[in-house]
Amino acid sequence: MVKEQAHTVSSYEQELGQIRAMMARMGGIVESQMAQAMAAIVDRDEEAAMAASECDPQVDALERDVEALAIRLLALRAPMAGDLREIVSAMKITGDLERIGDCAASIARRTLKLDPGDGRMSVGGLRTMGRMVQENLRRAIDAMAQQDSEGAIEVWQSDTAVDELYTAMFRELVTYMMEDPRTIRSCTHLLFIAKNLERIGDHATNIAERVYYATTGDQLPVVRPRGGPAV
Amino acid sequence: MVKEQAHTVSSYEQELGQIRAMMARMGGIVESQMAQAMAAIVDRDEEAAMAASECDPQVDALERDVEALAIRLLALRAPMAGDLREIVSAMKITGDLERIGDCAASIARRTLKLDPGDGRMSVGGLRTMGRMVQENLRRAIDAMAQQDSEGAIEVWQSDTAVDELYTAMFRELVTYMMEDPRTIRSCTHLLFIAKNLERIGDHATNIAERVYYATTGDQLPVVRPRGGPAV
Repeated sequence: MVKEQAHTVSSYEQELGQIRAMMARMGGIVESQMAQAMAAIVDRDEEAAMAASECDPQVDALERDVEALAIRLLALRAPMAGDLREIVSAMKITGDLERIGDCAASIARRTLKLDPGDGRMSVGGLRTMGRMVQENLRRAIDAMAQQDSEGAIEVWQSDTAVDELYTAMFRELVTYMMEDPRTIRSCTHLLFIAKNLERIGDHATNIAERVYYATTGDQLPVVRPRGGPAV
Repeated sequence: MVKEQAHTVSSYEQELGQIRAMMARMGGIVESQMAQAMAAIVDRDEEAAMAASECDPQVDALERDVEALAIRLLALRAPMAGDLREIVSAMKITGDLERIGDCAASIARRTLKLDPGDGRMSVGGLRTMGRMVQENLRRAIDAMAQQDSEGAIEVWQSDTAVDELYTAMFRELVTYMMEDPRTIRSCTHLLFIAKNLERIGDHATNIAERVYYATTGDQLPVVRPRGGPAV
C-alpha cells in the first residue's frame, strides 16, 4: 500500500487520512480479536480461539505500514504542531495496539490448554473483567478515531476498576488451587488470562493518554491510575 | 532540560546527541533496575527490591523528555533518511525501555511477597534465565548506543533460548505446586516473575529490531524468534 502511494501525487491531507484509516483498521482488528478471545473464554469456542490466535501477522504488517507512511509524511511534508503530534502519537499507539493483539492471541491460545471441565472456574469474573476491558478498548479506539480528548479522559479514569477486579480474580484463583490441587494447571492459565486482560486495559489507558496528548498538546498527570495492581 | 534547550542556539547534531544521551541514560537506569530485580530474586535483597520498584517515575519522565525533544527536532530541523529513522526508532525504543522498567519493578515487588523459605524454589532456573535476559538487554542497549546492526541481529537470534528456559520453568513451578499445595501462593508469584523475565527478553528483541531498522533501513524478517513460548 505504501509503495503504490509513492507513485501517485497525493495531497498531505490524503496521506494523513490514510494513516487514520490504517489506524482505524488496526483498531478494528484487535477489537474483534479481543471479542474472539472472550468467546474463547466464556463459550469455550475453539474456532474463535483459533481465529484470535492467528491475527498477529496482519496486525504486525499494519504496524509497519503505518510507520513507513508516517516516516514518508515526516520526510516529505514536514508536518507541524497538531499534525506532527498526531503522527508521532499514531506511531506510539500502533505499538499498544500490537501488544493488545498479542495479549488477545495469548488469551485465546491458553483457553485451548484448559483441562476439560476446568473452563467454568472463574468464568463469571473473567467475563465481567473482559466486558470492562472491551468497553475501555472500544472507547479508546473511538477517542482515537474522533480525536476526542474528553473520551480519552474517561478511559484513563476507568482503569482502576479493572485493576481491582484483577486483584480479586488473583485471590480467587489461588484459593481454587489450594482447595483442589488438580485444578492447578488450568488455574495458572486462568491467572495469566486475567493478567492479559489487565494488560489490555493498561494498553487502552496508554492509547487514551496518547490521544489526549495528540489532541491537546498536554500530558495527563504523571500519577496514573495505570500504576497497576499489586499482584 | 528540553525547555532550557529552547533558549540556546543549538546545532542539529547537538540535539541529536542529546537524544542519544537521554536514551543511553534510560538504558542505564533500566539495566541497573534489572540487576536490582535479580539481586532481589537470587539474594532476597529487600533493599534492592525496594530500589528497583521505585525507578518508574524517573524512566517515565525520560520517555516524555525524549519524545518532546524528538518532536522539537522533527518540527524545527526536518531530519532526513537515517537521522529520521533514528529519531522515530528512538521514540519507539523508549516505549520498550519503559516496559522493561515496569517488568523489573514488578519482579522486585513480587519478591517481597514470597513466603519466607519459598524463595529458594526455582531460584537456579530464574538465575540462569535472568542472566540470559540481562546479557540480551545489555547487548541490545550497546547495539542501540553504537548503532550496531550486527549486534542487533545477535540479540534477535538469542531470544529463543530464553523462551525455552521459560517453558521449562513454567512446568517446574506447576509441578512444585502440585507436590506441595502450601507453595501455591509463592509459586504463582515465581511464575509471574519468570513471565516478566521472558517479557524483558521480548522487549530486548524489539529494541534489536528497531536498531537494525534505524541503522540499515531494512526490517528483520517478519517471522521472529519472538513468537514467544506456548505457556
